[in-house]
This record gives sequence, C-alpha cells and structure tokens, in this order.
Amino acid sequence: MNWEKIYNDAKLWVKEAGERIRSSFQQTLTIRTKSNPNDLVTDIDQEIEQFFINKIREVYPGHKIIGEEGYGDQLEQLEGIVWLIDPIDGTMNFVHQQRNFAISLGIYENGIGKIGIIYDIVHDEMYHTLRGTGAYLNNHPLPLLPERTVNESIIALNAIWVMENHRINHQLLIPLARDARGTRSYGSAALELVYVATGRVDAYISMRLSPWDYAAGALLIEELGGVVTNLRGKKLDFLSKDSLLAAKPGLHQVILKDYLNNGNW
Amino acid sequence: MNWEKIYNDAKLWVKEAGERIRSSFQQTLTIRTKSNPNDLVTDIDQEIEQFFINKIREVYPGHKIIGEEGYGDQLEQLEGIVWLIDPIDGTMNFVHQQRNFAISLGIYENGIGKIGIIYDIVHDEMYHTLRGTGAYLNNHPLPLLPERTVNESIIALNAIWVMENHRINHQLLIPLARDARGTRSYGSAALELVYVATGRVDAYISMRLSPWDYAAGALLIEELGGVVTNLRGKKLDFLSKDSLLAAKPGLHQVILKDYLNNGNW
Repeated sequence: MNWEKIYNDAKLWVKEAGERIRSSFQQTLTIRTKSNPNDLVTDIDQEIEQFFINKIREVYPGHKIIGEEGYGDQLEQLEGIVWLIDPIDGTMNFVHQQRNFAISLGIYENGIGKIGIIYDIVHDEMYHTLRGTGAYLNNHPLPLLPERTVNESIIALNAIWVMENHRINHQLLIPLARDARGTRSYGSAALELVYVATGRVDAYISMRLSPWDYAAGALLIEELGGVVTNLRGKKLDFLSKDSLLAAKPGLHQVILKDYLNNGNW
Repeated sequence: MNWEKIYNDAKLWVKEAGERIRSSFQQTLTIRTKSNPNDLVTDIDQEIEQFFINKIREVYPGHKIIGEEGYGDQLEQLEGIVWLIDPIDGTMNFVHQQRNFAISLGIYENGIGKIGIIYDIVHDEMYHTLRGTGAYLNNHPLPLLPERTVNESIIALNAIWVMENHRINHQLLIPLARDARGTRSYGSAALELVYVATGRVDAYISMRLSPWDYAAGALLIEELGGVVTNLRGKKLDFLSKDSLLAAKPGLHQVILKDYLNNGNW
C-alpha cells in the first residue's frame, strides 16, 4: 500500500474541496434543517461529501467511506481502508459565521489510524499527519505536546456539559471547569481537536461526537504525544457515537483519575 | 474638534501597535502573574500601553487616558476627551494561543462614545467606527444587525456563568443557554463584541468586565443597531467594572425581559 500517495491525494482533494467551499461564500446558502434546528445542513455539505466520494471511488475503488451526510457506506466494522469524512465540521459556525469550521478527513486501516487532515479553509491552515512522520500545520512541523497541570490549563468545554444534562452528571465536570485556568468553546470538534494538537488549549471534552468528527483530530493529537479516549478512559471504536476526552499527556490521566473517577460514572 | 484626524491617528497607531505585537511573537514572552494566575500579563502588554500613551500625550496633550495596565490617568468622571485602551484584550489567549486576542481602543467625549477600534492582529482585521459614519471591517462597511429570536441565536457565554458563582444566580442564565441554538466562548471580550457586531454571534454576556474591555466594542455594536447595557438593562458608565449584555436589536429586550426579569435580580 502506497501511503505516501494516498496522503498526497487526500491533501490535494481536501484543498480542492476547500476551494469549492470558499467560492460558495458568494452564493446564498440554502439551509435545510435535519432532525432538529441545531443540526443545520447545507447543500454545500452534501456536495462536498459527494465530491470526496467520487474521487475516492475513482482512484481507490476498494476503499470504504463513512461520511457525515450518509452518502458513503454503512459499515459495521473497520476492515480494510476506510475514509471517515466530515465535509464541513462546525456547520452552525459555517452558516452563522462563515468561519470556525473545517474539513475533517481521517483514513484508517483495519481500525488503525494512518492519515489525519483537518483544513481550516478560511485561514488556509491545513493540519495533517501520516502516522509516524510527524504532524504539520501547512509545511511547519508541530512540536510535541508538553505536560500541563489542570491549574495551568485552558479546557475546551461547552457550557451545556456543566448544566444538568442526560449524558453526564454535570457535577463531575464543574470542579474541572473551576480548577482550570479558563474554558473555551468554539463549536467545531475538528478545530477544538486541532487546538489541543497545537497546544492552544490543553484539553477538549465533549459528550457526544461521531467518528467523522474526531477521526482526523485524534490522530493529530496522538502523533504529538497527546491522549484521546472517551470520557470513561476507553479507546474509541470509530464506528459509533461516543464521548471524548482529548488532552496533553499526563493531564489526560489527571482529569480521568481526579475528576472522572477513573471512568466509573 | 477634528474627529476625522483623531480617527485616522488612532487607526494608524493601532496598526503600528499591532506590528509591534506581531513581531514580538519571535521573542520569548516574559510572563508575570498579577493578582491571580488567571490574570496573566506580559511585558508586551505594558510596552504597548506605554506606546499609546506616548503618542497621545505628544499629539493630544489635553486628552485623558484610561488603560488596563494603569499607566494612564486616574479618572472619576469622563469629562473632556478620554481614550480607553486595552493593549491586549485576551491576554490568556495571547500567551496560550498567539491568536484570539485584540487591541481595543475607544475614544469618548464627555462620556459619549465617538471612536471605536478593535484590531485582530493575527488575522489583520481592523473593526472600526467613527460614530455616525458606519462601522467597517478594514475597508468593508458592516451591515446593520437584523432581529433574531433566542431559538435561532448563538450566544457567547462562558461556562462559569452557568455554574454557581457569586455574581449572578446561574439559574437565570441556564434557561437562556438551553433555549439558544448554541453557546460559544472565545476568551476575549473585545473579539466577542466584534462577533456580535458582525453577526457571528447574536448576543454576548459577561458578568465582570472593565471599561477598556467594552468601550470600543459597545460603539461598534450600537453603530450597527445593536444594544449594549449591563445585565440589569442599565447604561454602562465606562468608569467602573460592570456586567454586560450586548445583543442584536429586539433580542436584547427579549433576553432582559424573558430571562433576566427586566433586570430585577
């Protein structure tokens, strides 16, 4: 398997998809609502997913595809090579802000992450890794993540998770939010994972994400020495929705042990 | 009074200060802590405030200055022309992220806002207004703010305000966070106000800000038809710390009436 070629093709297609999205800003966005009003979807979203699928089917017909918009395959296991695509991660930001969204693309082989690409189109910042060869922002290598205490940390965490909710006892997360130096929330899992990878935040917590939201980001973080699991400390399976705890090395264990009762909640 | 000249001088100095901050990225940041570890301050912060003070004292010796770093005047009223300066709004972001911070500069005459400038240095985006002449992002005029319902709104609101705190009964803000389409938190009041002015978020709430944090942003929002008060619906005095509710027209009244008991809390 020529992973260098797949890596180069993937980066090229992500860049090309980015150009299409950028040029769509001029058009009026036709917005439809999916299951609920928070789950905005645009024609662009669907068009971009279809763009990736066409490219992959043409060049790599044996590969499988999981996409947010559902035009890919229905998989029950991650056998072979699987592309996990979120054509626009942070759709609400895309619609409301025309910034703070990204293309997220992860490529896995038999469940093992090989390639992760997150492209912040508006700022022309592509974060990418081919496992074992380092992680990059455009052409600049990203440094390994240092350790950090909770008191020195900025944690990406949406306000809804410290209010009563049906996914976690919010009293578990409140002490963490209090002890941290600060909290932030950007509304795009892919970019929040990039923020962990680049050290702009020290940890990111979310209660419900889909594999295409974190397939690329998890790889970038792990390549730089960070740790990504669900909020019980278990490995992600990249097939089902899950919670997420991504953090600098050391800090991940401290959050899990001192705040999340070692995952027993 | 030649307000056009003051406007041009102010924009020029902000740009120049931005260049200095940008070039400082190469240096190692010498970070000291002020009263608590959340209140980071850098040499750059102080140097930039001094840069503004030198310029203003030289060209406008009769003007007064209030600056975050405390090198300006100690004022008990806003008589005459007063420059309110935050050399780096979002210092924690500056230190941790080298992005998501801004220079904020407001100029008031006898308590009435005349000029507001917020400069997102990293993205080279200067938001500026001379009261009555429109508000601009660089050279592009910003459109007036439309009305928006709570359900369609993204609200900038830090997680700490929906957790028990000693500034507000958090049970007042939780229903608002639930009813909104989403919440965000960026860690820079100046940029969060710019986000309201540009419609990227629909409202911004904070419990404790200083006049230099919002002197410029309030003007930008008001110039575009938005409304800025404290969280009890009272006018800001631009001399003391206060809470802040900045929002699109209509939405401001709805938040105040339906969630904040008309300010009686």
